Amino acid sequence: MNTFGRSFRITTFGESHGPALGVVIDGCPAKVSLSAEDIQPVLDRRRPGTGPLTSPRAEPDRVEVLSGVFEGKTTGMPIALLVRNTDARPSDYDELRLVFRPGHADYTFQEKYGVRDHRGGGRSSGRETVGRVAAGAVAAKCLAMIGIEVSGKIEEIHGVSDPGAMEEEIRKAKKEGDSVGGIIRLSATGVPPGLGDPVFGKLDAQIAAAMMGIGAVKGVEIGDGFAAARLKGSGHNDPMDSTGFLSNHAGGILGGISNGNEVVVRIAVKPTASIALPQKTRDSGGEETTITVGGRHDPCIVPRLLPVAEAMLALVLMDAHLEQEKYRVFVQEGDLK
Amino acid sequence: MNTFGRSFRITTFGESHGPALGVVIDGCPAKVSLSAEDIQPVLDRRRPGTGPLTSPRAEPDRVEVLSGVFEGKTTGMPIALLVRNTDARPSDYDELRLVFRPGHADYTFQEKYGVRDHRGGGRSSGRETVGRVAAGAVAAKCLAMIGIEVSGKIEEIHGVSDPGAMEEEIRKAKKEGDSVGGIIRLSATGVPPGLGDPVFGKLDAQIAAAMMGIGAVKGVEIGDGFAAARLKGSGHNDPMDSTGFLSNHAGGILGGISNGNEVVVRIAVKPTASIALPQKTRDSGGEETTITVGGRHDPCIVPRLLPVAEAMLALVLMDAHLEQEKYRVFVQEGDLK
Amino acid sequence: MNTFGRSFRITTFGESHGPALGVVIDGCPAKVSLSAEDIQPVLDRRRPGTGPLTSPRAEPDRVEVLSGVFEGKTTGMPIALLVRNTDARPSDYDELRLVFRPGHADYTFQEKYGVRDHRGGGRSSGRETVGRVAAGAVAAKCLAMIGIEVSGKIEEIHGVSDPGAMEEEIRKAKKEGDSVGGIIRLSATGVPPGLGDPVFGKLDAQIAAAMMGIGAVKGVEIGDGFAAARLKGSGHNDPMDSTGFLSNHAGGILGGISNGNEVVVRIAVKPTASIALPQKTRDSGGEETTITVGGRHDPCIVPRLLPVAEAMLALVLMDAHLEQEKYRVFVQEGDLK
Amino acid sequence: MNTFGRSFRITTFGESHGPALGVVIDGCPAKVSLSAEDIQPVLDRRRPGTGPLTSPRAEPDRVEVLSGVFEGKTTGMPIALLVRNTDARPSDYDELRLVFRPGHADYTFQEKYGVRDHRGGGRSSGRETVGRVAAGAVAAKCLAMIGIEVSGKIEEIHGVSDPGAMEEEIRKAKKEGDSVGGIIRLSATGVPPGLGDPVFGKLDAQIAAAMMGIGAVKGVEIGDGFAAARLKGSGHNDPMDSTGFLSNHAGGILGGISNGNEVVVRIAVKPTASIALPQKTRDSGGEETTITVGGRHDPCIVPRLLPVAEAMLALVLMDAHLEQEKYRVFVQEGDLK
Repeated sequence: MNTFGRSFRITTFGESHGPALGVVIDGCPAKVSLSAEDIQPVLDRRRPGTGPLTSPRAEPDRVEVLSGVFEGKTTGMPIALLVRNTDARPSDYDELRLVFRPGHADYTFQEKYGVRDHRGGGRSSGRETVGRVAAGAVAAKCLAMIGIEVSGKIEEIHGVSDPGAMEEEIRKAKKEGDSVGGIIRLSATGVPPGLGDPVFGKLDAQIAAAMMGIGAVKGVEIGDGFAAARLKGSGHNDPMDSTGFLSNHAGGILGGISNGNEVVVRIAVKPTASIALPQKTRDSGGEETTITVGGRHDPCIVPRLLPVAEAMLALVLMDAHLEQEKYRVFVQEGDLK
Repeated sequence: MNTFGRSFRITTFGESHGPALGVVIDGCPAKVSLSAEDIQPVLDRRRPGTGPLTSPRAEPDRVEVLSGVFEGKTTGMPIALLVRNTDARPSDYDELRLVFRPGHADYTFQEKYGVRDHRGGGRSSGRETVGRVAAGAVAAKCLAMIGIEVSGKIEEIHGVSDPGAMEEEIRKAKKEGDSVGGIIRLSATGVPPGLGDPVFGKLDAQIAAAMMGIGAVKGVEIGDGFAAARLKGSGHNDPMDSTGFLSNHAGGILGGISNGNEVVVRIAVKPTASIALPQKTRDSGGEETTITVGGRHDPCIVPRLLPVAEAMLALVLMDAHLEQEKYRVFVQEGDLK
Repeated sequence: MNTFGRSFRITTFGESHGPALGVVIDGCPAKVSLSAEDIQPVLDRRRPGTGPLTSPRAEPDRVEVLSGVFEGKTTGMPIALLVRNTDARPSDYDELRLVFRPGHADYTFQEKYGVRDHRGGGRSSGRETVGRVAAGAVAAKCLAMIGIEVSGKIEEIHGVSDPGAMEEEIRKAKKEGDSVGGIIRLSATGVPPGLGDPVFGKLDAQIAAAMMGIGAVKGVEIGDGFAAARLKGSGHNDPMDSTGFLSNHAGGILGGISNGNEVVVRIAVKPTASIALPQKTRDSGGEETTITVGGRHDPCIVPRLLPVAEAMLALVLMDAHLEQEKYRVFVQEGDLK
Repeated sequence: MNTFGRSFRITTFGESHGPALGVVIDGCPAKVSLSAEDIQPVLDRRRPGTGPLTSPRAEPDRVEVLSGVFEGKTTGMPIALLVRNTDARPSDYDELRLVFRPGHADYTFQEKYGVRDHRGGGRSSGRETVGRVAAGAVAAKCLAMIGIEVSGKIEEIHGVSDPGAMEEEIRKAKKEGDSVGGIIRLSATGVPPGLGDPVFGKLDAQIAAAMMGIGAVKGVEIGDGFAAARLKGSGHNDPMDSTGFLSNHAGGILGGISNGNEVVVRIAVKPTASIALPQKTRDSGGEETTITVGGRHDPCIVPRLLPVAEAMLALVLMDAHLEQEKYRVFVQEGDLK
């Protein structure tokens, strides 16, 4: 399943070391100003090779708009966005053809499909998120028009929350041939009350799926999250007065529907699976072996995962916005009498 | 959106104080032995009125099988399950008609739909889960045939984890007119490797959506969850030997696909929103007021939420199983030459 | 797949001789006046036992609204509608348990599911359409608010088009123990331009699926239909002037999108498969046999299929209307500058 | 909605005079041998510029496989196929920017989206079918493995059915500046019994949607189609003996499920909307005008539509095959005890 969303649907494609990656956005409204320049800066944020603490793979990640835009405006037709891989080095991975890297999807892809593209993890690579980030930029452009803004920040790396200390943790892990994870906090402001459906289309359920659908994410919280489990009702309920809510333990969502408060989401990112230290594993023949993962990797994926998480939150909100729009007339005017 | 699942799809309906609740299951395989007796015991586990610490509402929750079963076997046709409400007392809620209860969906439903069934929260009530639990019992029946078993337990109530202490916390909260939350741990054994799709159909993403789609759930973790964010790669990766995985930090899922290990999920449940203590709020005219929520409520919803969470996990796994089945021949025999 | 629609989704359930039939409507707007009285008259139109030329099965087909309506208005929640079977006579079908009736789905259900409810065709019976017709009545209620009206008429029975002659054809067929088919013409007026999506969500494609999804329908035409294949472009294109289209060969749809003209659909209905004449067939053991179908049947299903076809057209239009609504602001105001 | 299918899903993109056209196939089984060489010959069949009776637009339509194939085999990942437009001449259409061509989607796109890409009809152009035909070639490759073969032929052009006379009709229409339509007959052999779902997933309903979703198609028949409406039950029912069905009035489908017979479909194709004769129309300002459509067009689109219709039938069958596969174990082995 490579499609996400109901009304603002994206379908991504591409592998880490294949010819290209991309996305088709179906359901984007017409008449939205859009060009590659709206998308490129966001792609640049997730690009590898931009610093000493990210993978040195040199990918310009230039996006090409193949369809759906005419004279600078969207037309309501599907928007296909394409990014060519230019620094693929499949031979880096020759020795991984038959061995399952711990913490990666090598074993599970082999079991599921009976075949796998072992080059850099194929489609299970974080590189797949190029398409999501590109689509998220389009969603963000649309959301900006209606006053919704999504942002995120790194809250913790390997248990520390001071920015300098965070960088130090990454540096240390890199030196050790190891890796570290962290926590990201996302928020959306300007979200009107009413987005999200009760029961199975809850806004928080959509967000949870979107976040847990990012490789390396192992936990999702809305508002107080796990801390809520230790509060009493009197401490967790958000009281209201005539101006609105007086607190935001709920993270902006009640009964699966946005309440007008800031939407607050936290996600836990596991440490990068690829590490230079020796690890016990087995190969596809069932033989035990020890592996040391080479290639070009990030000792901490959290900074590059941040724009992906923002993109996914933007996609969920834009989708929920369109889903809600269809009932606007009925909500406002009732049965049109 | 009141439908969940792709291949094993359920659609629930009904409100807390309406005539009836139920579910239609679409996509259940034919030739599965099934009767109301398979479903009733599971419904009984979530039933109110069964003890001093649950809502005293007296609902027998008798399930009726309306379709899809013939001579004791499923036929592949949709299975409609119906439960009548018998102890609805809508008048209990008359004073809530115009007031928004803190922590509830009253305000957001009003904003979204311009109208709401205020009786016991209408469809935002936990009573809606009757349909989910009934459907989950059918999924569990199917899963048992292929050796998959789902179970769960309460790990924590209001921060304590000793069973006696947990009960004491609930008792204390009840006495105070307050409420408490807690944490549930779910697991699934016998899950073969290969369930779940990469990218947007990840097994963990489906689970996250299923769990966060339960009212009162504010956090979801797979495997180590948030703790993973504080580990190093060398400590989080699960090594393998020829017999399989040597640890289970991943919670049984790698790259969104089950790896054959136990699937482990933890969810955070907020304290019940309905409390007897006075709370600040506003009414639908915008006037400030103070509310004390009467009616019949659970001081802690965690025990009754447990079978709902188990049901949702069973539904996700059965759906993923069917989704995977369609490729079985290709995976095993390749291109059939 | 027992669900139809994207935004206005219906899920039907029930078998010909099971306890009940029904439908869940998901996505109906809130604040629409609705009660059983809006639905019952339409159900009565498709009811059996109402005349000498329809099946004598005595079913009152009383509809019960189980959810989604509060104080006479829809709430945006799923609307479950239930109809009990009261004159089921499964024993009428004992001799058909192992024999495949020609023209029926007996053989294909057995092949597909390995089991089947043989009583009156189980779910392949026309009785399944009770749920569709009930849901169609709700759609029609919504459509009336925005000025769209769906109607249909019988154009031909067994090749004749005079009403008296049509009835005579049915009478004759009944006497012979045989059956006849016919042609229905449907139309929708008040359809605004803009409904339907290009490519795979074309309004005519949705209509075609809806119509061919009715048992016994073997052909669908939009506008001139097959006659268009014999026209020249100059004769088929509908010219426009400043007041609109000057003809309607297209049947109100261009490029899959409604053009504001009357939407015109024709469908071919095959003769009822159940006939009293002896027919060659085989049983589930592979043995050849001859069958004479007893039970209670319509010698011509066309009149009772008419409200079903109208219901399906209403459902498609309501769904397309909601799908289009979500883009209304963008279409009217552009990028909201 | 630019996605078609449930298990074998395709999403197409691209406009007639934009940079490129293409398709993403999601759900193709792994381990299927596939390369551009499997797809190119089918694309060549629908290519323009190949004869005196087709549009002279010179498009090589070279397909590039961007993802989903590794070492000559599919991997189960999405397969993106790209075709660049090389002979786009948008300036040919400058004078159509503000005028609605009769029989085209110009007016309806403008009404629906408030904007349109007027160059050659943008996405409403038949050129959009490049993606469908490419995807259909992949489906056909998969179907061949399980013994299903789809083929089609032109049965009628402008009412005549002799091949030489058909060509003459096209030639004559071209000379007159006019256009003609026709009828295509499709069939699928080797279809096992059991494909298609009862009620809303009927195989014939899926086929009807697929066919009516092709621009210019105005009618669809299964088996006897409209002729069935004039038969009696005794003449239309297909009797069986121990070897199978003795006739095929049903066109291989009973109750929405394939019965093992040849699947037979007929479609009506309207005459090409673009004609050189003067036609009355209006412009987007509401002014009446007369238009003569220049550009490069086919006087009869039927021959180039044939591979598109075959592709769509292949896509429906492959999708139905995968949908059915997931229940195979249950059908064959029952409840696995």
